[in-house]
Amino acid sequence: MIYSSKLLENAVNAFGALPGIGKKSALRLVLHLLKEDLNESRHLADAIVTLREQIKFCQKCHHITDENFCSICANPARNKKQVCVVETIREVLAFENTQQYNGTYHVLGGVISPIDGIGPDSLNIPDLLKRVGEDQVEEIIMALNPTTEGDTTIFYLSKILKDSPVKITSIARGVSFGGELEYVDDLTLARSLATRLPYENYLVQNK
Amino acid sequence: MIYSSKLLENAVNAFGALPGIGKKSALRLVLHLLKEDLNESRHLADAIVTLREQIKFCQKCHHITDENFCSICANPARNKKQVCVVETIREVLAFENTQQYNGTYHVLGGVISPIDGIGPDSLNIPDLLKRVGEDQVEEIIMALNPTTEGDTTIFYLSKILKDSPVKITSIARGVSFGGELEYVDDLTLARSLATRLPYENYLVQNK
Repeated sequence: MIYSSKLLENAVNAFGALPGIGKKSALRLVLHLLKEDLNESRHLADAIVTLREQIKFCQKCHHITDENFCSICANPARNKKQVCVVETIREVLAFENTQQYNGTYHVLGGVISPIDGIGPDSLNIPDLLKRVGEDQVEEIIMALNPTTEGDTTIFYLSKILKDSPVKITSIARGVSFGGELEYVDDLTLARSLATRLPYENYLVQNK
Repeated sequence: MIYSSKLLENAVNAFGALPGIGKKSALRLVLHLLKEDLNESRHLADAIVTLREQIKFCQKCHHITDENFCSICANPARNKKQVCVVETIREVLAFENTQQYNGTYHVLGGVISPIDGIGPDSLNIPDLLKRVGEDQVEEIIMALNPTTEGDTTIFYLSKILKDSPVKITSIARGVSFGGELEYVDDLTLARSLATRLPYENYLVQNK
């Protein structure tokens, strides 16, 4: 694409560098900003830089926060003995949105992936082990994405925690609500049969 | 969605205010920026504000430019007597990308739409009329989107220019290359029949 202005080209390239935004969408966003009030552009630019400069990560669970500890870890009503291990804060937000979980989280910051050069040392694993001791954690719920890397990470953590009294569980895999059985992939369908539950358990909501 | 940080929420809302970006995509973009180097965020913020503060619009055709006149109007090789009228600079970029047009453009900045409160006075019509006189324009090519508002605008312009010697044409409507006839909408199909061309003309490329 040939742009008529260096400034325009810069802005389009900067937006286009974001994930999932191609050149055409970037141009659309930039032209939107040009049409709107100058303050909207300033507000967006300000929000981006302030976030990046001032954001903190919870010293316990590595969730995003404005303080030293996140609102979940700082809340005395949350069960510190139940820790849900997730990859990124996106999953924390998704679980929190369900309003069905009263434990705490631990954000690993990724999963073990030798091909991308991510070993256990690159993840927030030491802090998780520290919590197991300090908070007398009773259950660690693995809520990683169902990929080879996710499974590897679960396997690694379960090895490390083998000798501790903590119970390791994994979120259930199965057919989504609203999913039509005939369109579900083979692996999920097979898993949903293999890990079928007695009907009484099926009815039980998360406690 | 409940966010754990005010800064995060601000940034997500700022991105979410852009067209075509929902809350989930906004969160994805923000988390990407958090993962990347601080300089990437600064660069994006800077590109947005610099663009908005320093951008100029061509004094002749209202295309985006860094100078007083855009590179198209300033180019002596471009035919000033042929003016392609478009809604926004997006169309200018699209036509320029074809590398098949040697005339100039005129960006109206929208189309007449009484329902949105956009009358002829809100558009760059006076400058177009000025150009018709100054540059001895011979042809005005209407390249507006095929909507009621677009057609209204073409009708309005053709009325105003009725007594001038300028010839008014419109870009061809018809079946796209690569389009399958059976999936084309009725209006386009009917139009492509009604405005069919002798085969020799069909072969002629844009001159």
